[in-house]
Amino acid sequence: MTGTATQAANRIVLARRPAGAPVAADFAIESAPLKELAEGEVLVRTRWISVDPMIALLIGERPLGGAVPSYPVGGPIPGAGIGEVLVSRAADLVPGDLVEGRIGWSDQAVVPAAGLRKVHPGLGAHALSAGGLPGFSAWLGLDMIGDVAGRTVLISGAAGAVGAIVAQLARIRGARTAGFASSAERCAFLEDELGVDVPIDRRSPDIAAQLAALGGIDAYFDNVGGPLLGQVLPHINRQGIVVICGLMNSYTGAPAGPDDSTLLTAIMGRSLRVQGFNNREYLSRLPQFEEEIVTLLRSGQVIDRLNEKAGLQGVIDHMAELFMEGADVGKRIASLD
Amino acid sequence: MTGTATQAANRIVLARRPAGAPVAADFAIESAPLKELAEGEVLVRTRWISVDPMIALLIGERPLGGAVPSYPVGGPIPGAGIGEVLVSRAADLVPGDLVEGRIGWSDQAVVPAAGLRKVHPGLGAHALSAGGLPGFSAWLGLDMIGDVAGRTVLISGAAGAVGAIVAQLARIRGARTAGFASSAERCAFLEDELGVDVPIDRRSPDIAAQLAALGGIDAYFDNVGGPLLGQVLPHINRQGIVVICGLMNSYTGAPAGPDDSTLLTAIMGRSLRVQGFNNREYLSRLPQFEEEIVTLLRSGQVIDRLNEKAGLQGVIDHMAELFMEGADVGKRIASLD
Repeated sequence: MTGTATQAANRIVLARRPAGAPVAADFAIESAPLKELAEGEVLVRTRWISVDPMIALLIGERPLGGAVPSYPVGGPIPGAGIGEVLVSRAADLVPGDLVEGRIGWSDQAVVPAAGLRKVHPGLGAHALSAGGLPGFSAWLGLDMIGDVAGRTVLISGAAGAVGAIVAQLARIRGARTAGFASSAERCAFLEDELGVDVPIDRRSPDIAAQLAALGGIDAYFDNVGGPLLGQVLPHINRQGIVVICGLMNSYTGAPAGPDDSTLLTAIMGRSLRVQGFNNREYLSRLPQFEEEIVTLLRSGQVIDRLNEKAGLQGVIDHMAELFMEGADVGKRIASLD
Repeated sequence: MTGTATQAANRIVLARRPAGAPVAADFAIESAPLKELAEGEVLVRTRWISVDPMIALLIGERPLGGAVPSYPVGGPIPGAGIGEVLVSRAADLVPGDLVEGRIGWSDQAVVPAAGLRKVHPGLGAHALSAGGLPGFSAWLGLDMIGDVAGRTVLISGAAGAVGAIVAQLARIRGARTAGFASSAERCAFLEDELGVDVPIDRRSPDIAAQLAALGGIDAYFDNVGGPLLGQVLPHINRQGIVVICGLMNSYTGAPAGPDDSTLLTAIMGRSLRVQGFNNREYLSRLPQFEEEIVTLLRSGQVIDRLNEKAGLQGVIDHMAELFMEGADVGKRIASLD
């Protein structure tokens, strides 16, 4: 358990700041020395890397209007992943443990154990998806909405990592579900695999008519923001709820949503509740969530599609596809096994 | 209790649609015949008329972006007031009863009893202010915020009918209070009479510094909206709450809120909850509110300043002053006694 000899790791760095949606050339893979293990740190070998849309925000200019700092050009990207502990100088971890946390887009890393959590046995890569923070976001956001039995819940990005879990949990809790996805293949996935009652292709020219046909939306779980939110607002019932889990529309510099006056007049005119949250603020509830989701995954009541690519190059390829209208569904991960 | 002979009443009509803030010439006083009493209706003599900022919205072009219809030019204005029942064809009301409801800007009116509620004995004109719907809005909005003990609550329009009650109820519940008002006299009223800890003149050039000096706002009770909301947003704590009770800034056609998608990015970036409400959706809770407020008013823990003018002309004069930066404070009413 003493420090290991200095070694090198391969890692992804931000080669330049993307102009809009990220492309492969915005990233580079380089070798960098691993620092010596300090007390409380562990050396991990990366098993899976999580490719989160939020990274596109954080590598952009002035994320959230400057509310959070951008990742610097030339630097590594502290994304989340699952690693296997190789060497430990932390009390709670031993070699062989699987841990989740911001281990970075790197094949090995020295990280403080304080930012890591042991992965629930048996979840494997799903600890980055339904069984991890995306699933936790889905669960927390639904909890903020409250009882959905018999109510109509609309989800944006419903074929994505968070949206797919929202759709299934809402259905299990008795909601009628409707979901946006950005291709015919994704809409088929919503209907056939996730059991979404009303899939809506967000590229279709008659979105307003399809929304009106829902006959009133009680809750909108929004991962996207943008003009789509403006289109949804007039169809939300009085005292309806909008949960803002993500604003993916804005992550490449587009407007985050409809203008404030539209949003505010809807909030006041129809007594809406619009609420944002960050799953990192509720980590004390993670064990309760894990217990529920593990049961649902094991019984097959919730399916968790992983969209898997290989190696660090797989991470870069995922990033380049992130904002495309494609056929792929489910949580984007890269496997470094 | 039979129908009364046809009589005439004096009433205010909308002479023309205001261009921006209302002026006296936008209104006219005319005589109009009173209709015959039908079953379920009462004839009332108006005692007090409530002058609500919301009327400025409803006589404007496309209120709330067209979400609600404008009052027609040439027609009467169905504002709220307190009347004394002169003749009743309704089961629950007898002559002499004081009733509150949309009796209109008229010195007498024939109205359906179903839209009226008996005024709590002893409240008098305060049934249009602290003891009525403005106070009820204050109470409901604070209830949506939740426990405010030890927290910082900022109120816009704090010298107005709703804001003054919010400020006092929040203080009584243990909050540190800060309030915006639009003149030095109104700020003095906040501090000296309402016990607001930090009055802020919204015309002052260093609002940002004054907001920063609060050291974080836990809840913003907003009656105004507009650019002021945009100035407040960066100073709201994580998981802070914004209750939208009114958007007075927009009632004369100005933007309802800050530019761009400031609001949405703040909601997501700092996990805010932004919530609108309409007191008419919660009328079943009115008796509970009345019981509380009557006790507080009687004991002097809550003061209720009335800004009183005389007659129908007083209503018009109030409307013309509604958006001025003045010395007047408290709920605007006209007395027809």
